[in-house]
Amino acid sequence: FQDIQKKIENLFENLDYKTVGYEMYQLIEKLFPICRSITGNGVRETLEIIKHQIPLEIHEIPSGTDVYDWTIPKEWNIIDAYIENSSGEKIVDFKKSNLHVLSYSIPIDKKITLVELKEHIFTLPEHPDWIPYRTSYYEENWGFCLPFNQFKELKEDTYHVVIDSTLENGSLTYGEFFLKGEKEDEILLSCYVCHPSMCNDNLSGVSLLTYLSKILINVNLKYSYRFLFIPETIGAITWLCFNEKNLANIKHGLVATCLGDKGKSTYKKSRRGNAMIDKIVQKVLEESREPYDIMDFNPLGSDERQFCSPGFDLPIGSLMRSPYCEYSEYHTSADDLNCVGSDYLENTLKKYLKTIYIIENNETFTSLNPKGEPQLGKRGLYNKIGASNIHPLNKKAIAWVLNLTDGKNSILDISNRSGIDFVTIKKIADNLQKKGLLEVFK
Amino acid sequence: FQDIQKKIENLFENLDYKTVGYEMYQLIEKLFPICRSITGNGVRETLEIIKHQIPLEIHEIPSGTDVYDWTIPKEWNIIDAYIENSSGEKIVDFKKSNLHVLSYSIPIDKKITLVELKEHIFTLPEHPDWIPYRTSYYEENWGFCLPFNQFKELKEDTYHVVIDSTLENGSLTYGEFFLKGEKEDEILLSCYVCHPSMCNDNLSGVSLLTYLSKILINVNLKYSYRFLFIPETIGAITWLCFNEKNLANIKHGLVATCLGDKGKSTYKKSRRGNAMIDKIVQKVLEESREPYDIMDFNPLGSDERQFCSPGFDLPIGSLMRSPYCEYSEYHTSADDLNCVGSDYLENTLKKYLKTIYIIENNETFTSLNPKGEPQLGKRGLYNKIGASNIHPLNKKAIAWVLNLTDGKNSILDISNRSGIDFVTIKKIADNLQKKGLLEVFK
Amino acid sequence: FQDIQKKIENLFENLDYKTVGYEMYQLIEKLFPICRSITGNGVRETLEIIKHQIPLEIHEIPSGTDVYDWTIPKEWNIIDAYIENSSGEKIVDFKKSNLHVLSYSIPIDKKITLVELKEHIFTLPEHPDWIPYRTSYYEENWGFCLPFNQFKELKEDTYHVVIDSTLENGSLTYGEFFLKGEKEDEILLSCYVCHPSMCNDNLSGVSLLTYLSKILINVNLKYSYRFLFIPETIGAITWLCFNEKNLANIKHGLVATCLGDKGKSTYKKSRRGNAMIDKIVQKVLEESREPYDIMDFNPLGSDERQFCSPGFDLPIGSLMRSPYCEYSEYHTSADDLNCVGSDYLENTLKKYLKTIYIIENNETFTSLNPKGEPQLGKRGLYNKIGASNIHPLNKKAIAWVLNLTDGKNSILDISNRSGIDFVTIKKIADNLQKKGLLEVFK
Repeated sequence: FQDIQKKIENLFENLDYKTVGYEMYQLIEKLFPICRSITGNGVRETLEIIKHQIPLEIHEIPSGTDVYDWTIPKEWNIIDAYIENSSGEKIVDFKKSNLHVLSYSIPIDKKITLVELKEHIFTLPEHPDWIPYRTSYYEENWGFCLPFNQFKELKEDTYHVVIDSTLENGSLTYGEFFLKGEKEDEILLSCYVCHPSMCNDNLSGVSLLTYLSKILINVNLKYSYRFLFIPETIGAITWLCFNEKNLANIKHGLVATCLGDKGKSTYKKSRRGNAMIDKIVQKVLEESREPYDIMDFNPLGSDERQFCSPGFDLPIGSLMRSPYCEYSEYHTSADDLNCVGSDYLENTLKKYLKTIYIIENNETFTSLNPKGEPQLGKRGLYNKIGASNIHPLNKKAIAWVLNLTDGKNSILDISNRSGIDFVTIKKIADNLQKKGLLEVFK
Repeated sequence: FQDIQKKIENLFENLDYKTVGYEMYQLIEKLFPICRSITGNGVRETLEIIKHQIPLEIHEIPSGTDVYDWTIPKEWNIIDAYIENSSGEKIVDFKKSNLHVLSYSIPIDKKITLVELKEHIFTLPEHPDWIPYRTSYYEENWGFCLPFNQFKELKEDTYHVVIDSTLENGSLTYGEFFLKGEKEDEILLSCYVCHPSMCNDNLSGVSLLTYLSKILINVNLKYSYRFLFIPETIGAITWLCFNEKNLANIKHGLVATCLGDKGKSTYKKSRRGNAMIDKIVQKVLEESREPYDIMDFNPLGSDERQFCSPGFDLPIGSLMRSPYCEYSEYHTSADDLNCVGSDYLENTLKKYLKTIYIIENNETFTSLNPKGEPQLGKRGLYNKIGASNIHPLNKKAIAWVLNLTDGKNSILDISNRSGIDFVTIKKIADNLQKKGLLEVFK
Repeated sequence: FQDIQKKIENLFENLDYKTVGYEMYQLIEKLFPICRSITGNGVRETLEIIKHQIPLEIHEIPSGTDVYDWTIPKEWNIIDAYIENSSGEKIVDFKKSNLHVLSYSIPIDKKITLVELKEHIFTLPEHPDWIPYRTSYYEENWGFCLPFNQFKELKEDTYHVVIDSTLENGSLTYGEFFLKGEKEDEILLSCYVCHPSMCNDNLSGVSLLTYLSKILINVNLKYSYRFLFIPETIGAITWLCFNEKNLANIKHGLVATCLGDKGKSTYKKSRRGNAMIDKIVQKVLEESREPYDIMDFNPLGSDERQFCSPGFDLPIGSLMRSPYCEYSEYHTSADDLNCVGSDYLENTLKKYLKTIYIIENNETFTSLNPKGEPQLGKRGLYNKIGASNIHPLNKKAIAWVLNLTDGKNSILDISNRSGIDFVTIKKIADNLQKKGLLEVFK
């Protein structure tokens, strides 16, 4: 077991974070052009690419399947779409940006007036050069999304609108990767794969979880880790419905979204507000010595809405950078490859790894000499006169660890009460255990 | 039941508050001249006038009756009182202000020197033009209260002092109005009717509770409401003594005092400090968006001293404007008709009604779709693309209500956690119940 | 019992604090020259002097005795020590300051070069004129401590180093004084007697506990008090080991150290952080109306490290002035007779006595008239009209005491909630008990 922990530490310490940062960015570049939605071939293509990196298991759930209050919708696929004016010019072209099409648009091929067309066009007047991202999953409709500046130049004309899509029985596709550790207890890490060409929301989450799991594959882990690559909302509900009886194993979890932008790190707490994952991520952010925000839970947002619904109330928070809705590029064509950076992805990855480090190492010990202090001098744990073989921080940490290892305080508790960083407390506790002064509390 | 709630809301919304404010002021004007004390005809006359408005039950408890550590005192009545100087001038006259006589003064009719007189005169040097209000209920005495400026001009003379009063076996009188609701659980609202010609303390309380009960008579209520019009201290003790076995029904309560002055609203918490009434009134004041004060409980003050004595510790606070002792006119002749205003009375009444609205509507619900979110689209509770039939505040409120209706959170809890006002949360919850998404928690 | 309390109050009120302050200082002067260590004749001589004041019981625990993880070391004694240069001048002389010798130095008598000598010299460059205090109890060594300014002037020479000490089987010596009160429950007050010529650390603690116990001998106490005069660390561990089965009697305790310097009072909380002793000492400091500091517990410091080790976790804090390590003279020759003052000792003594006053008087009462207020007028506890026989503070205190004596609130709780000082609340409660309104809660 000592051995296992050492492996984690070595791996983390020896990781070439800079290279991993670049690779995460490259994966985003590769996935960017694909037109994803909550079902369809875009999701399958995306999951196939991830499968080159990690042994992803891919699930297909047929249209029409009931999942709690919902039903798996028909599968949507799209080949092409455009608006042609009467001169035969393609003034809007799906091939230039898949955001131009309202996601889940039914097929259409007809000539209409400007007035009729306007009923099916969506714009974003406050950012007149950006294409907004719009969907109509559960209400049959069709439409195009345009920059407002283009929209307001449209002239009276006869327009040929073509959407070469299909909406038919098929299935909802999602990916899952389970990494078995020593324990049944598991950590759920979830991202969504349903957004078309946008980077921070949420190819950043897809890429980060891909690389995080790829790193953890090489580590002997105490906990088991489950990675979900699912369509948002319907995918989370579907997964919950099919896995309900195993949910009790989930001890901690995070929804991974908006992880690559330049904003500071933000942690949105679980519904419980004081779950262990809440304490751990707050510790990670505090020890980062970088600016950060902590948000209370709210039931708007991403899949924490489902995981933290009252019937489950799972201990799952969300560690992101700029929260969705709080960066202006959110849900627009401006959330592109310029909106994320490899250094930001790298920084976030470190925080996810530190979170996992704390989860894996947050033991509770019991002192084997609880009555009075043990004599440190005879164990070489006390400075000799005039020498200082023990660093003052370690001397302080030794005293705190020996005082608080009463079976009630975890390493995290000791770190919090003493104000000494988690890693130092952990290393001191390991050393004291090696010297026969502590044992793991059972 | 939906129907009942609707009635409350309609009534409150359609109330002509301005007119009620004027009427409350007029009732104060009518009651102002009467010389009240803890017993006697002044109380009876006062209660008869209230009885014109509401079906008050009037109780008479004979002198000599033991009530806990106390005994109902003799009944005091007064016809006239004055001080005449040797020239036959009435220099002090009860007919001009009943505050001139020490309440419960025994009869007297004799000629005395200035030195002897001074032993029986009470003044207020810090407000030299005002007559102070003084009493001597449980120690036989007689006396006059004068403005300090008049007192210091008194010359050596022979004074004829006359107090034409009686102190004889009789009874203590109080009024009670019980408004039966659906439940046995009741709300106690108490004011005192023992003060002579003073307005804020406490004809404001008498008038406000009269009109509050008059309004509630027309509403189908879930809770029962009990209104007390009692002499302070001895009246509260008497009522408690005769009603001890029913006290368990009291779920919330307020002492109504000092409600018509220009000061901001002040809530004095119950002895418990965290009773539901404390949370509700704080919510009312917070949502008023007006300045307000919250005071911790203390055992000085009005009848909360009795209701919150350690043997009862009832969940009763006090919602007032300027607290007794904190406005300079308190217990003087300056607490007159200028000290209260119909607009202040109206403002306070609204806060009492809002308190009752919250008490009546603070249900706890359970979601019928607790696992994941229910699908709102198919129930018309979700915006269609490009349309916004659901107001953003309501969208947020729907999410909060569905997330927190786990049988543990009341409407008030959801309002507090979400930061959305009580009425919005209540209306959303009712709507979701109507759509079959919630049921009342049992 | 009333009688007993009266005696405490009288004694405290009549104490000539100024004289006791001088006497405490004089005892420090007398003990200052003695060369103490964790064992040996210096400790015995010190305890004999204290025994002139109080009936101290002196314990001798043989070298080699096992006490938990430790073993009683050999006994150390020293007659003389010096360094002579080749001209025969004593350049360092134990007779001038016993701090010159590393405590527990083994005997030595040899001629050595400057290079060899330097290996055994300890200095304090940041305070170049002061001699540091150094020890080597559990690792055999020898050495001299010098002012840095003297050290840096040492020339190449042959030096004759002489330490005329013994390190042999003997015993560890400590003193204990147990003052039996009415109850078995006891208060532990502990100081250490192992430091050589330094005043604030910790002759101030030795002297203060001597005089505190001398004062308490004359009082009939409710609680029992145990005073320890022990060597730091090993003495505390030894005492704990021999008294383990009686530790459950310890209800509160304080480690007395650094009590005579000019700094403000500082309270270091017990490990529990919310023990009764923590609340009591905070109250004492708050009511002193002098500046003070409160420190959370940490496992560095004095014998609270042992008393608050996880196997005991006793409710023991430390009431000091400047905490060890936070005044520059700490553990140097500058912690001399100028570092402490009789007025500071006197001030600290008052706070210890106030602490004991609160411990002794912190009763919990029950009102015998809990339903409504009792009638105060008939018991002479209420102001008559125009007279003010009851001070307003007492009137307020009466109301608070009667409202909160429900068997759940102690005098300290009532004082804290009302904001009225402890002594006033205590006196009012005693008076109300005398009037038959309260009884002690059982």
